[in-house]
Amino acid sequence: MQAELINPFILSVGNVFQTMLGCSVERKSLYLKDHHSPTYEVSAVIGLSGKASGAVVLSLSRSVALKVVETLLNVQVGEINADVLDAVGELTNMVAGGAKARLSQYEMSLGLPSMITGRDHSIKFPSNIHPICVGFETRWGPLSLEVGLDLPD
Amino acid sequence: MQAELINPFILSVGNVFQTMLGCSVERKSLYLKDHHSPTYEVSAVIGLSGKASGAVVLSLSRSVALKVVETLLNVQVGEINADVLDAVGELTNMVAGGAKARLSQYEMSLGLPSMITGRDHSIKFPSNIHPICVGFETRWGPLSLEVGLDLPD
Repeated sequence: MQAELINPFILSVGNVFQTMLGCSVERKSLYLKDHHSPTYEVSAVIGLSGKASGAVVLSLSRSVALKVVETLLNVQVGEINADVLDAVGELTNMVAGGAKARLSQYEMSLGLPSMITGRDHSIKFPSNIHPICVGFETRWGPLSLEVGLDLPD
Repeated sequence: MQAELINPFILSVGNVFQTMLGCSVERKSLYLKDHHSPTYEVSAVIGLSGKASGAVVLSLSRSVALKVVETLLNVQVGEINADVLDAVGELTNMVAGGAKARLSQYEMSLGLPSMITGRDHSIKFPSNIHPICVGFETRWGPLSLEVGLDLPD
């Protein structure tokens, strides 16, 4: 995967967190995914298809996931419930949508988000894809972004 | 989600297992997903987008996942490794591709598969989508299919 493809996603994470949540994110790390890559407690995956196809994964630590839904819905939540999963899916949809708009030459469309929970869950891409991972820190805790895209030759 | 949309996926599971693996599948159950729906040890998710958008999840018990890769690659494997994940992703891709061909009026395209492992992982769709789940039994063990599609009004 070409490195320049990741920048629109990184920008989009920052924009969505700032605009929707009033929370700034700080990029801490950027690396090719290996099997030591952290996945946090709640993840959402959205498939992308078009002239480039792939998937984007946003994975939030529990504290970030709870704060996201509290901020978006103005309710207190103490556990990962359906509202939290929907909010994480919607956030990932906004991140993918923002990046897609900046990558319009690939004419990508988005699938629906699937949310994954479970301690120690792990999300893998096909082995011919080398996803790029980006770790972020916020005042609420850590989150990560993974993007794997396959470009036609 | 309209029930008639599920049939092409069910047919496709049967075709792919029979053609690629020489293994017949028996449909055991069909129901709307609730939070008690079983997810097996290895799952693959593929996003679909087009005039209908959504995702398909194929979830295999450990014994089925190992037999799939043994049959496809003619190697013995004792654990869920990268070959197993790739094989499960490819199988899901074939299932989704077969169904897509039978649902050509929706002009759907497929994203890349993402594979999910982890004991007790759970995959959720957005709460406005009501995925249909289908349980299958094979001589190697159980597997399940989930399809959630959102049709424009």
